[in-house]
Amino acid sequence: MPSYTAPQKDILFLLKEVLNIDEVLDFQYFKDVDMDLVEPIISEAAKITEQEIQPLNQPGDQQGCSFKDGIVTTPKGFKEAYQAFVDGGWMSLNSSPEFGGQGLPKMLQVALDEMLTSANVSFSLYAVLSQGAAHALQDHGSDLLKDKFLHKLVSGEFTGTMCLTEAHCGTDLGLLRTKATKINDGSYSITGTKIFITSGEHDLTDNIIHMVLARLPDAPKGVKGISMFLVPKFLVHDDGSLGERNGVYCGSIEHKMGIKASSTCVMNFDNAKGYLIGEANKGMQTMFSMMNIERINIGLEGLGLSEVSYQNALAYAKDRLQSRSLTGAKYPDKQADPLLVHPDVRRMLLTMKAYNEGNRALALFAARLVDTSKHHPDAKQRELADNLMAIITPVIKAFFTDTGFECTNLGLQVFGGHGYISEWGMEQFVRDARIAQIYEGANGIQALDLVKRKLVMNEGVFLNQLTEIMSAFITACHDKTELNEFVAPLESYLKTLVDVSYWIINQAQTHPNVVGSSATDYLKLLGLVILGFMWLKIVAVASKKQEQDNFYKGKILTARFYFKKLLPEVNTLKEKIMAGADSLMDMDEDLF
Amino acid sequence: MPSYTAPQKDILFLLKEVLNIDEVLDFQYFKDVDMDLVEPIISEAAKITEQEIQPLNQPGDQQGCSFKDGIVTTPKGFKEAYQAFVDGGWMSLNSSPEFGGQGLPKMLQVALDEMLTSANVSFSLYAVLSQGAAHALQDHGSDLLKDKFLHKLVSGEFTGTMCLTEAHCGTDLGLLRTKATKINDGSYSITGTKIFITSGEHDLTDNIIHMVLARLPDAPKGVKGISMFLVPKFLVHDDGSLGERNGVYCGSIEHKMGIKASSTCVMNFDNAKGYLIGEANKGMQTMFSMMNIERINIGLEGLGLSEVSYQNALAYAKDRLQSRSLTGAKYPDKQADPLLVHPDVRRMLLTMKAYNEGNRALALFAARLVDTSKHHPDAKQRELADNLMAIITPVIKAFFTDTGFECTNLGLQVFGGHGYISEWGMEQFVRDARIAQIYEGANGIQALDLVKRKLVMNEGVFLNQLTEIMSAFITACHDKTELNEFVAPLESYLKTLVDVSYWIINQAQTHPNVVGSSATDYLKLLGLVILGFMWLKIVAVASKKQEQDNFYKGKILTARFYFKKLLPEVNTLKEKIMAGADSLMDMDEDLF
Repeated sequence: MPSYTAPQKDILFLLKEVLNIDEVLDFQYFKDVDMDLVEPIISEAAKITEQEIQPLNQPGDQQGCSFKDGIVTTPKGFKEAYQAFVDGGWMSLNSSPEFGGQGLPKMLQVALDEMLTSANVSFSLYAVLSQGAAHALQDHGSDLLKDKFLHKLVSGEFTGTMCLTEAHCGTDLGLLRTKATKINDGSYSITGTKIFITSGEHDLTDNIIHMVLARLPDAPKGVKGISMFLVPKFLVHDDGSLGERNGVYCGSIEHKMGIKASSTCVMNFDNAKGYLIGEANKGMQTMFSMMNIERINIGLEGLGLSEVSYQNALAYAKDRLQSRSLTGAKYPDKQADPLLVHPDVRRMLLTMKAYNEGNRALALFAARLVDTSKHHPDAKQRELADNLMAIITPVIKAFFTDTGFECTNLGLQVFGGHGYISEWGMEQFVRDARIAQIYEGANGIQALDLVKRKLVMNEGVFLNQLTEIMSAFITACHDKTELNEFVAPLESYLKTLVDVSYWIINQAQTHPNVVGSSATDYLKLLGLVILGFMWLKIVAVASKKQEQDNFYKGKILTARFYFKKLLPEVNTLKEKIMAGADSLMDMDEDLF
Repeated sequence: MPSYTAPQKDILFLLKEVLNIDEVLDFQYFKDVDMDLVEPIISEAAKITEQEIQPLNQPGDQQGCSFKDGIVTTPKGFKEAYQAFVDGGWMSLNSSPEFGGQGLPKMLQVALDEMLTSANVSFSLYAVLSQGAAHALQDHGSDLLKDKFLHKLVSGEFTGTMCLTEAHCGTDLGLLRTKATKINDGSYSITGTKIFITSGEHDLTDNIIHMVLARLPDAPKGVKGISMFLVPKFLVHDDGSLGERNGVYCGSIEHKMGIKASSTCVMNFDNAKGYLIGEANKGMQTMFSMMNIERINIGLEGLGLSEVSYQNALAYAKDRLQSRSLTGAKYPDKQADPLLVHPDVRRMLLTMKAYNEGNRALALFAARLVDTSKHHPDAKQRELADNLMAIITPVIKAFFTDTGFECTNLGLQVFGGHGYISEWGMEQFVRDARIAQIYEGANGIQALDLVKRKLVMNEGVFLNQLTEIMSAFITACHDKTELNEFVAPLESYLKTLVDVSYWIINQAQTHPNVVGSSATDYLKLLGLVILGFMWLKIVAVASKKQEQDNFYKGKILTARFYFKKLLPEVNTLKEKIMAGADSLMDMDEDLF
């Protein structure tokens, strides 16, 4: 069975030394949060994820969720672990104290969420969906609804869902058919069927709060006619006690490639009572309140799974003796050398390590932007942080989950044949990681969102704000000769990024298909360059301390691998993007 | 449930128009094989794979093999389908008539094997392992052993296995511990435990013939002390009837990520009677007789799974309506446009199509080399073909299975959320494809074999023979202006291949780790360039006929996509290789 140790040292290094969480804690909103709290929170998060949640991961995969007569049973131990998670206050770390949350920075929430996904992605899904639902309710719900539902969503007494997809529409929500009709008491009657509803039904809590996209009578066609409704599994009385069972039932659960301990439900709404959230026909905006939160969470699945896969692959590579080093036996007293002497095994492990640590830095950098966008005293800084998040969110969702899938496969490969055998657990990481490239907006859609809405539609404004920050940091590193090996190439890759970006912006005017033909390659290119920036931030700190602790020397060496062996892909991506759309679009449908 | 239609038209195009199978049929050995036989064989192979074998694929995955009291039961229908396959003579297509085979070219065998893996990889494994075992027996076995076992292996009345791996050694066979002791009648007593034995036990045939690597008493240490033994499940009397049960038993079967209908067995040999195959202590050479055959077969799994995944993804992309084209509605009368209008969906499908058709061409090109190496009248041509196969075999094993895994994942992605749900079958292709990157020598080992043994150790002789053939073909295309868009870039990529190859050969003298650090990138680079050569061969034919049939126009357009969007990766691979080994090797073990 695989093991997991939360990377506390790396997380604290990033929070404290690279990303200066102390500056965030200086915001007025965090006045009650002391720097001394950071370490204990990280270590307690490590404890519960390592000890309570991770041990359920492999048994959960083997047992899966079961469905009978509308009731979903989660694997053994999930209910108790969920209760411990709620009791420990882990559901409400980052939520507003006004609704019972602990008001801690997103930076700590993201650190927790990474550990949670490393430990058990299926388990994490019962928790993280609630965060999105709570967020939508807090931002757009009436006070009455907040009073009834928000505290309990925040605490974890209830869980939440997002009910978007229908059988005939996933990406294209404009096609959805679920209907909402106003009834006498001001609430709505919801009827329709939703599919792929994560945590739509389960046995962990007494109530489940569904956030449902539906169409009012005479609503405009397409996405401009969609509204959002809160539909509880059980109605709630004014005193907070549970009322009658609402007309929403699970029809079946899916049999999936992975995340088998997470229930993926068909949900039937049959004149279910619902409450409008936000304005009528503005459901898409309300939805994005949830979606942007979820996209970060899903991105973290890629990171979390790659991290735990790395840890186990590394242990195996140190332990397993097989063949001799190309330069002669390293351990002549043993019957063979450990796998770790082989350059190709190191290639796999370093690829994982470089993406993991770079992605972790970017995740926490983004979390810092979220904290800034909400709580910075200066409105301009808040807006800047929002703009940067607009462009970084699809990168975190897609780049993290693409590299996460690549890396869990490398982890499996390090194990050779044993990696393919279920009992070692490495293949579960691959199966669990695969969904993250799809749900909450498939990665192709993330890329299209990035290029179309975040790059082309604002003519590069957000991108300029991002590249200016990178550029300023690079310039500030110019006089540090020990950083030359990173500064010079990053400067050149940054120029490539800008060149490619404006090539796309210009092309898009006359060749709209270029937006689509370049999207996936552009997202990867942007991700690689931002990660180069993260690595420069890391080595700028580490280079000063490499004599005092090998930990910092490891950072320099990993950065060097990243710059030599992973960043060069930028050049090919540029070439592919600039090859344009014709070779994709010229093929007639019947020639495929 | 997914469907499958064998790509007969493409196979016949390659056999007849691109690779001139008529020249192979002109060899004396094939004097009884008429060109008129080619089409019926392909269409009958299509029929049995589509109609008898493919329908068992998804149920086989769901049911899996079961194990009880040493007995393995294959999924429902496998026994009957196997019998039909044997009765149709499909087990012995390419085998020597001397032993009951049909003496048909390897080119037709490879065409069949691709279809078989598209239809059902698990099923195919019961058949293809026998080919390797038969090959080793034919090349190295005594006449007595051939008389007893070879006809029945060839016909499929018995199946065969390769028993190499032990719990502590996979790649590094020098470590193996299974013992063989000579007994009075000239046979040997074999004792030890083997793992990961594909088809080690099953209920399809009355007997199973194991080819077992073991160590004689006082054998030299390491790989120079390994011998190969034939160990039948049941001993065979001189009259061909089955004798007593031999001391080889299945101890358990593995629970795996995929190929669940293929039995993967722990095999316990307890004083089992075995017969020496080939010379004592020369077992590794004997093994490579099997292994090189198997490596082509395993490569074909990547192609076969990618092909069937492509067919289903394409059908879905034409059928599923979601969102509008970036250039405006293409089907304004429908509620949305089909997925196929979207550039990013086309990127995924064309990547699959370009690799599939390129890999298929290379597979059949390699099969032609096998036929040439065995049956060409000119010894020099036979040797040349052997040398080319030495360098192409690891490419087929690793490049096909890496691109196969990439492509089955693209196929899944085209389906969005539905791709992750078991009932659609797309995720099974991914799980089934994953093992092919590992077994019969993990792809990292293929790459090391390529760079160390096939490139560096002979100082580029084999590579030169290959590049000369490519170069000559390119030169012959110079005067065809319609091919310019392919000829000029391929010439440049070929130069890159040669430059990189000699850089590695030179570096290897002083920096042995460069052999390992460049291996995986080099194999991919070589694969991409060889596929560029295949595409040039294809368009050289197609460009003359594109007016007469859209089929040929499709080839030109697919080649264009390959050259614009896939081949450019060569440049990044070059950069990564030439970045050397230091960034991999400088990290101390404890800094990982």
